[in-house]
Amino acid sequence: MTLHTLFEKLEQSYPDMVEVRRYLHQHPELSFEETETANYIANFYKELGVEFRTGVGGNGVVATIRGAKPGKTIALRADFDALPIQDEKDVPYKSTVPNKMHACGHDGHTSTLLHLGRTLHEMIDELAGTYVLIHQHAEEYAPGGAKPMIEDGALDGVDVVFGTHLWATEPVGKIQYRVGPVMAAADRFEIVIQGAGGHGAQPQKTKDAIVVGAQLVTNLQQIVSRRVNPIDSAVVTVGSFVADNAFNVIADSAKIIGTVRTFNPEVRDLIEEEIGRIVKGTCLTANCDYKYDYFRGYPAVVNHEVETLFVVEQAKLVPEVTSVEETEPHMGGEDFAYYLEERKGSFFFTGACPEGVTAPYPHHHPKFDFNEKAMLIAAKTLGAAALNAQ
Amino acid sequence: MTLHTLFEKLEQSYPDMVEVRRYLHQHPELSFEETETANYIANFYKELGVEFRTGVGGNGVVATIRGAKPGKTIALRADFDALPIQDEKDVPYKSTVPNKMHACGHDGHTSTLLHLGRTLHEMIDELAGTYVLIHQHAEEYAPGGAKPMIEDGALDGVDVVFGTHLWATEPVGKIQYRVGPVMAAADRFEIVIQGAGGHGAQPQKTKDAIVVGAQLVTNLQQIVSRRVNPIDSAVVTVGSFVADNAFNVIADSAKIIGTVRTFNPEVRDLIEEEIGRIVKGTCLTANCDYKYDYFRGYPAVVNHEVETLFVVEQAKLVPEVTSVEETEPHMGGEDFAYYLEERKGSFFFTGACPEGVTAPYPHHHPKFDFNEKAMLIAAKTLGAAALNAQ
Amino acid sequence: MTLHTLFEKLEQSYPDMVEVRRYLHQHPELSFEETETANYIANFYKELGVEFRTGVGGNGVVATIRGAKPGKTIALRADFDALPIQDEKDVPYKSTVPNKMHACGHDGHTSTLLHLGRTLHEMIDELAGTYVLIHQHAEEYAPGGAKPMIEDGALDGVDVVFGTHLWATEPVGKIQYRVGPVMAAADRFEIVIQGAGGHGAQPQKTKDAIVVGAQLVTNLQQIVSRRVNPIDSAVVTVGSFVADNAFNVIADSAKIIGTVRTFNPEVRDLIEEEIGRIVKGTCLTANCDYKYDYFRGYPAVVNHEVETLFVVEQAKLVPEVTSVEETEPHMGGEDFAYYLEERKGSFFFTGACPEGVTAPYPHHHPKFDFNEKAMLIAAKTLGAAALNAQ
Amino acid sequence: MTLHTLFEKLEQSYPDMVEVRRYLHQHPELSFEETETANYIANFYKELGVEFRTGVGGNGVVATIRGAKPGKTIALRADFDALPIQDEKDVPYKSTVPNKMHACGHDGHTSTLLHLGRTLHEMIDELAGTYVLIHQHAEEYAPGGAKPMIEDGALDGVDVVFGTHLWATEPVGKIQYRVGPVMAAADRFEIVIQGAGGHGAQPQKTKDAIVVGAQLVTNLQQIVSRRVNPIDSAVVTVGSFVADNAFNVIADSAKIIGTVRTFNPEVRDLIEEEIGRIVKGTCLTANCDYKYDYFRGYPAVVNHEVETLFVVEQAKLVPEVTSVEETEPHMGGEDFAYYLEERKGSFFFTGACPEGVTAPYPHHHPKFDFNEKAMLIAAKTLGAAALNAQ
Repeated sequence: MTLHTLFEKLEQSYPDMVEVRRYLHQHPELSFEETETANYIANFYKELGVEFRTGVGGNGVVATIRGAKPGKTIALRADFDALPIQDEKDVPYKSTVPNKMHACGHDGHTSTLLHLGRTLHEMIDELAGTYVLIHQHAEEYAPGGAKPMIEDGALDGVDVVFGTHLWATEPVGKIQYRVGPVMAAADRFEIVIQGAGGHGAQPQKTKDAIVVGAQLVTNLQQIVSRRVNPIDSAVVTVGSFVADNAFNVIADSAKIIGTVRTFNPEVRDLIEEEIGRIVKGTCLTANCDYKYDYFRGYPAVVNHEVETLFVVEQAKLVPEVTSVEETEPHMGGEDFAYYLEERKGSFFFTGACPEGVTAPYPHHHPKFDFNEKAMLIAAKTLGAAALNAQ
Repeated sequence: MTLHTLFEKLEQSYPDMVEVRRYLHQHPELSFEETETANYIANFYKELGVEFRTGVGGNGVVATIRGAKPGKTIALRADFDALPIQDEKDVPYKSTVPNKMHACGHDGHTSTLLHLGRTLHEMIDELAGTYVLIHQHAEEYAPGGAKPMIEDGALDGVDVVFGTHLWATEPVGKIQYRVGPVMAAADRFEIVIQGAGGHGAQPQKTKDAIVVGAQLVTNLQQIVSRRVNPIDSAVVTVGSFVADNAFNVIADSAKIIGTVRTFNPEVRDLIEEEIGRIVKGTCLTANCDYKYDYFRGYPAVVNHEVETLFVVEQAKLVPEVTSVEETEPHMGGEDFAYYLEERKGSFFFTGACPEGVTAPYPHHHPKFDFNEKAMLIAAKTLGAAALNAQ
Repeated sequence: MTLHTLFEKLEQSYPDMVEVRRYLHQHPELSFEETETANYIANFYKELGVEFRTGVGGNGVVATIRGAKPGKTIALRADFDALPIQDEKDVPYKSTVPNKMHACGHDGHTSTLLHLGRTLHEMIDELAGTYVLIHQHAEEYAPGGAKPMIEDGALDGVDVVFGTHLWATEPVGKIQYRVGPVMAAADRFEIVIQGAGGHGAQPQKTKDAIVVGAQLVTNLQQIVSRRVNPIDSAVVTVGSFVADNAFNVIADSAKIIGTVRTFNPEVRDLIEEEIGRIVKGTCLTANCDYKYDYFRGYPAVVNHEVETLFVVEQAKLVPEVTSVEETEPHMGGEDFAYYLEERKGSFFFTGACPEGVTAPYPHHHPKFDFNEKAMLIAAKTLGAAALNAQ
Repeated sequence: MTLHTLFEKLEQSYPDMVEVRRYLHQHPELSFEETETANYIANFYKELGVEFRTGVGGNGVVATIRGAKPGKTIALRADFDALPIQDEKDVPYKSTVPNKMHACGHDGHTSTLLHLGRTLHEMIDELAGTYVLIHQHAEEYAPGGAKPMIEDGALDGVDVVFGTHLWATEPVGKIQYRVGPVMAAADRFEIVIQGAGGHGAQPQKTKDAIVVGAQLVTNLQQIVSRRVNPIDSAVVTVGSFVADNAFNVIADSAKIIGTVRTFNPEVRDLIEEEIGRIVKGTCLTANCDYKYDYFRGYPAVVNHEVETLFVVEQAKLVPEVTSVEETEPHMGGEDFAYYLEERKGSFFFTGACPEGVTAPYPHHHPKFDFNEKAMLIAAKTLGAAALNAQ
């Protein structure tokens, strides 16, 4: 009954949902700089008379809706930062800011949660429990906004947390879930090989950093091929190799930068250690010095089983949902991971392929867009999960 | 008798030799841009009334001194271009032009030959034969000035050609010679590996150009270690490896640039071919495309036996020469090679270590300098060779 | 009711089950040579009056028990070959045959199925459906016995097929299952690099097969690290590298042998192709010839979802079963794979750790043994699955 | 005059020279086992009444001929061991011993020196100085016979030492010489990589010795390509790589054996050290243990300048000598090196290509043979050097 009301109200708010999304799309702000977006969110709740707190762990905003009846506290999270990409779409609502763009759908996440919040607020008298609406800044750029928001109390008193990502490469109507690891830990490493440069014709007087670096890149392949359990997924990528000299010079140093993706924390530790061992040994072969730094990004997003299967059931209650499918894990990263380290919960994907498109632009592409109808499906699924979790 | 006169006159001109060298040192010009230096040389001969030709093969200047008696035609060569290096010496005669510097001693070569020319001109009545003074531009930068000057007639009628290089890392008083190859052929190669870039977390959708490039650098080591006769000398150096991307991206392409040094033309051909074979095979392992270009620089400087042993004997006639030693071949390049491909002759090194210095700065160093007394020794040795070659 | 009877009867036959197992343990026969074991099985059924067929696809034996009532046809499979290993256990029932040993538990599989068959035969009047008992030869050695037995009709008329493996490294009472791939496809490859040998001091006259082979082993690491989707599991192992020459000789050829393990048939195809590409490219770098052969072993064992979850439910009905857990996929191979390519069904693991042992010897170890009580659990679980599948 | 006599007498002894050589050819003995050959030599001198000493440093024989007049002491050396090769020639004098063969010409060296000794003995009254005829055992197998013979006094009182090698790949009539290094130091190394073996499907539980060994072979290429001065000659060859396992096993260990060839002792030291560094670093990358042994063979044969140019002049006195040419250094080894470390002297090559042959079999080949006329030339050249060194 209550769910029926919720769905009806969300349907009525759909035009507003679109309008708010398009406004945000035109006014993107980069990670850690999203002050105007935070103000916009705060004003939205202020005008409704919803209780909220700003400056949570940075630019974060947390609104709280307390139902008339006692119950559990359910958190819902939406991120609101944009990317340093030039919007190349040809639509009326394209970004008005050069080199900034909502190219990942966070504008949609935000509008979805704002209107779900408004709806819950309108239904406050018939609701049991408390609803914590976490509007998170800075998801795109490590160390991210989730961690400081949690440290600043965003999850205080919360029992369960849910979140979704609009996913433009899957059709509208499909919900994707996965128990356990669903998005990877995404780390970065930097290695500088310090050899000894010299004249290109006198290798015997040098320690050739390019030759050592080449050996290192080759040796790093063994981590995934030999050191990691084949059942575990892992990626070690060298994205950048730079030793930029004249043709007739032997390189003094070489800089190698890359990323590591894992789901299993033990594999993550293993890889950090193995890179170190391989760097040390490889540099020793040529008596070179080195510098090795490993920077941990977000941990893996690991969905809890009960809450994830619960979301599956809720999704099936949404009339627009035509399929609920298990997804393979994604090797990309997400700081929703931190919420799930602290509380039970689940993160799922809401299909959002633009209408009539067979080869949608991927996320982070300059022509990225999504189907706005997916916002309504996301709102209903999150709403059903929130209400029925009581 | 004539030689005694030559030596005396050269000694008298030593202060002028220093002055001219220092003027040139203060006014360096880069390869192929040395118009003022060419004018300076031309004016020097003009004022003396020596026959000369300008614009030879570019900025080259060729002066000719015809002795009163018949005889052979002897060419002497000095190069006059400077390098794109900032002079960091603290001397009154340091370069007045930012980022340009005579860091290889060509100023000394030029002043040496100018004053040897003046002396020979003064002795014209007692001389047999003809003396061709080749002031060559653009030695430092391939394809160099030697080849176009030869094509423009610099060696016409010449029987024998001699040249020397002031060498700051050997003591003053030492002359170094070598029969056969004495400086290497110095070539350049460029390889672009064209893979297929992508997200750092999805290697399976890419062709990782860095991994292929690393393999290639490693494979190139086999050329010297396995393909070249160990009795032959050869160097294959990768000086530059650039694939400059974000840490979480897989490289679309990698650019690899390097140099090859050889003495034996067959080894040179072999290496050009083997690099091609290794690039082709290595790229095939990952189904990558590639571009491979090999640019031939100067060939090896190969001294003729009779003329070299003749120079050894002449050097021993110079009072300031304290030792005449065979040198090991140098892996560096010199376009004097072209003269020796056309005519009999020899190229030797004149020790020029600055006074009181035990660790002289190497050629091409921002603090490079040489002992000016070496100019007198060079002038006497070249002069003796020229007169006695009759 | 029927299930209760089945369990009771199996409990009563446990002493016989142990005795038969120990007899088989003392008389192991290698794959494709197991004629006496086949006779033993045939006699067992003959004495009971059970219908059976021998020589099925080789040494296979298939018994059939037709229940009084109509119903589905359920196949149960047990393998019966042993391994070329010297039994080093100190037990009364140790192998009597030198260098042959049931070191994988197939003796237990056989006794389990024989006694389950006897029990079903005794209950024939109250049973619905038909029970096909597949005693398979030659599981340990590709191409295995499953394929020819199927071709010889072992699955004719069968609706569902079940099998289990006693697993000595898991505790008694645990049943492990997995939907989807549970055991890997296990293939073999052989590569001969044909270079050109010669004197160790004259590399320039040779094509060094060891250097090329080393490069190849290194390059093969890229298959798992770069070419396979990180979500998919895969192993490429070089087990053998042989180029056995005098120290002062350059290798004429090198032989490289290895194995590939995969779950996903597309990954299997990809790896076969990529090895070929890498061999071709690597040999091209040194202008070597080569021979590359890829031999497909068993495909992956891929459990069907409905039947696997059904087994989970049946296992929970067995009183001795204390836990039913999902297992990670095993990278080992099993020709049960072929049955599941033809029919619905599931293959599961029955914990069989010897009593009081904390570090059990792994399968294929000379001291391998298992806990015989696991046979009763296996019999009950297979029996419950068979009866309740009706 | 004396030389004329020597030449004439040698010509007369040529049929005997051939006969003795053929006898020795039919009765080869391996290094350190050449007791019968030593007896043969001793008897030869005994019958002549020449003073000799047997058992010198092993199986060595040293004969001494003291001229009537005072003078210098000149040593001449010939080696007499054979090789473990099956003679595949079809000639009347082929080896009568299975798997043993004079495949390097030491039979010829021996016969040459015996007959030169006989001749000198016959001329004893007109000779000045002393002639030490060193018949050396065990040249083919390190540590060789030269060192113990020297330690046992073979060079006592000797002023100069000469030796030659019949060389079947050069034409008869040619003498090859070289000042400085003419044959290489030939060393051996053995490396065992100790990883941790395991099942081919579980690389994560192992340390794959083949993958590490492959990396090592690849890294060793850098020694010649990057660490050794390109002007110096050096070879690092891995002749043997053995890790012989089943296809589905990960290698526990790998054994790598090879040779190093150098002329310059500093390069030799450098390479021994660099191999150690590379083994250590490479094994560290995979946390493997290792064992590395480096065994020094003979040092380089380094000819003395004055004595070598003296040999050139003597060779020109031999009527059958049609050319005297400088040779490139050979990368093979010779323990004549030890004599030249102790005394002035020279080692040269005497062309010995079989008559009418354009592609002679190389030394150590099962069909190797040489032109016996070369023995006469060798005897005359050594004889001239011996007499004229007075």
